Amino acid sequence: MAKSPQDEHPNKAFGWAARDSSGLLSPFHFCRRENGGDDVSIKVLYCGVCHSDLHLLKNDWGVTDYPIVPGHEIVGVVTSVGNNVNKFKVGDQVGVGVIVGSCKSCQNCEQNLENYCPKLIYTYNGHSYDGAKTYGGYSDSIVVDQHFVLRFPDNLPLDAGAPLLCAGITIYSPMKYYGMTESGKHLGVVGLGGLGHVAVKFGKAFGLKVTVISTSPRKKEEAIDRLGADAFVVSSDPAQLKAAMGTMDYIIDTVSAIHALAPLLGLLKLNGKLVTVGLPNKPLELPVAAIVLGRKMVGGSNFGGLKETQEMLDFCGKHNITAEIELIRMDDINTAIERLEKSDVRYRFVIDIGNSFK
Amino acid sequence: MAKSPQDEHPNKAFGWAARDSSGLLSPFHFCRRENGGDDVSIKVLYCGVCHSDLHLLKNDWGVTDYPIVPGHEIVGVVTSVGNNVNKFKVGDQVGVGVIVGSCKSCQNCEQNLENYCPKLIYTYNGHSYDGAKTYGGYSDSIVVDQHFVLRFPDNLPLDAGAPLLCAGITIYSPMKYYGMTESGKHLGVVGLGGLGHVAVKFGKAFGLKVTVISTSPRKKEEAIDRLGADAFVVSSDPAQLKAAMGTMDYIIDTVSAIHALAPLLGLLKLNGKLVTVGLPNKPLELPVAAIVLGRKMVGGSNFGGLKETQEMLDFCGKHNITAEIELIRMDDINTAIERLEKSDVRYRFVIDIGNSFK
Repeated sequence: MAKSPQDEHPNKAFGWAARDSSGLLSPFHFCRRENGGDDVSIKVLYCGVCHSDLHLLKNDWGVTDYPIVPGHEIVGVVTSVGNNVNKFKVGDQVGVGVIVGSCKSCQNCEQNLENYCPKLIYTYNGHSYDGAKTYGGYSDSIVVDQHFVLRFPDNLPLDAGAPLLCAGITIYSPMKYYGMTESGKHLGVVGLGGLGHVAVKFGKAFGLKVTVISTSPRKKEEAIDRLGADAFVVSSDPAQLKAAMGTMDYIIDTVSAIHALAPLLGLLKLNGKLVTVGLPNKPLELPVAAIVLGRKMVGGSNFGGLKETQEMLDFCGKHNITAEIELIRMDDINTAIERLEKSDVRYRFVIDIGNSFK
Repeated sequence: MAKSPQDEHPNKAFGWAARDSSGLLSPFHFCRRENGGDDVSIKVLYCGVCHSDLHLLKNDWGVTDYPIVPGHEIVGVVTSVGNNVNKFKVGDQVGVGVIVGSCKSCQNCEQNLENYCPKLIYTYNGHSYDGAKTYGGYSDSIVVDQHFVLRFPDNLPLDAGAPLLCAGITIYSPMKYYGMTESGKHLGVVGLGGLGHVAVKFGKAFGLKVTVISTSPRKKEEAIDRLGADAFVVSSDPAQLKAAMGTMDYIIDTVSAIHALAPLLGLLKLNGKLVTVGLPNKPLELPVAAIVLGRKMVGGSNFGGLKETQEMLDFCGKHNITAEIELIRMDDINTAIERLEKSDVRYRFVIDIGNSFK
């Protein structure tokens, strides 16, 4: 007989879980595995609320295995390390992101692209190699193979830094891979949510001119004054779109809803690159003439590997990049999820786990 | 009063033109400008029949200005050069491709990307800077600014080499630009027509494994035996597609009809690149998840600049690359256009202009 979530492992754990597709979260007793030789045990202090948490909570993608404890933007402090662990010691501030395991032997893993390993293990709603379900960071503790644990920069605030573990690397990785970091170039950022607002900050740190492209004129002031964007284009205003035609070298498109690529491709110069990191649930229309006649490209990217995630965190430490957050307590999570569904957040909820479970 | 095509310029010329959207070609007397200081006058010997000739003959794109003398895959011999011409002398074998002019001062022109100059002048159905209409290579002679004239490799046959001027550069340029030339990598070529069959040859010359992806099983033997492809996938056969999933590094998609990108993207490995050089008249469906989860990209490209076209011709000379052609006489052109419309050609018609007008 399968063991219950409380008895599977020796270490008691506590978090909040959703039990069904209502997505409502409530207190949940479960357990974590014993700290193995390669493991790092972490007391979770903060956990970001990613948009994918919302989708998985409500089973929007049809892959949710309830009960589910979401959370893959985890920052905490090391409480125990295994005998083989040399990168971390008790008391270190560390982060855990989207995955907690991969095969370590495939071509992708060998190239530090564990994020594309066919056998990757998601931080939650996945299964460890021993078959045990994985539970995420909406919880008081987590035990993770050291390879999937990141050093968290000393100079960054832990709460506002948490979203870097997913939102940060999801933006940083394609900017590096697709060569969107050349100082002086012009970056368009489509959508000013959790991902988009971080893209503005990375763009500025790379020395780019950054224009936010958004359907919400009300976001203009904040984009420029608070986030440091250079310009703002209201995407529903044909005149503004027209004025910006052919001016951008790169676009990062963070929008997951169905939307038109044609006007965005029109904003690009010759050789322009549009990278999408959102996951619309239906195909988008690709106007082929636009990419042929302007030698443009549309690329995709899905978070990043561990080596690059560490590089990103170190870059953020150097450039003082964190997310703009609304810090909430665990009790507030269901309201936060509701607000997130309406894009009513500036710009990322982070749960103050450390102070929620006292 | 505007001058008639026969009186605009001093030099008499003769070719075949279409007068209306029937696209039917018939004999046409017109004229060419006097050879200027930077000009090269060329006796046309061969001219390829490009698929875009078909579209422009019938005004499929709504931009045709009748009468129209098509032809932009031109090979001939120099009959006269201007005082400033130092690259060519009388008797040289030369080529002329898709454009005969550009502004020479914009950023694109400065980067040898005249093909993306906003003021480029198409070899036919365009207007020279003096306002005169341009007429293409379905004619006995042409006068071209030396910058837009290419040296034709001595060792290549003039007839089979003519299609390189458009089909050749249209394939070569994206392969170089998008980095699709790494020896040992696996290239998929979608569509085995005028462009596709040349892509197979370039792929092999770059040391790639080449798989042809086609709806026509009957093309398999020829693709492998005649063109040198390594493998063949019938794109309408799910089993064959499935077996080839995730095996390709690059895909060149030459299909202009509406078609599904999803199965093609499925053929690509992680980091795979699909480049489309066709021009479907409606948007294609882009499955975003496929490019995000596999870090894939879809790019476009439109022929190439003059420097790169010369590089391509020299590469073809070195590797003995020409098109597979059916040589026709000018009298046969209307039948050839009909056959081209049904994709009934292996793989490019070339008009033997030199022997058609005697």
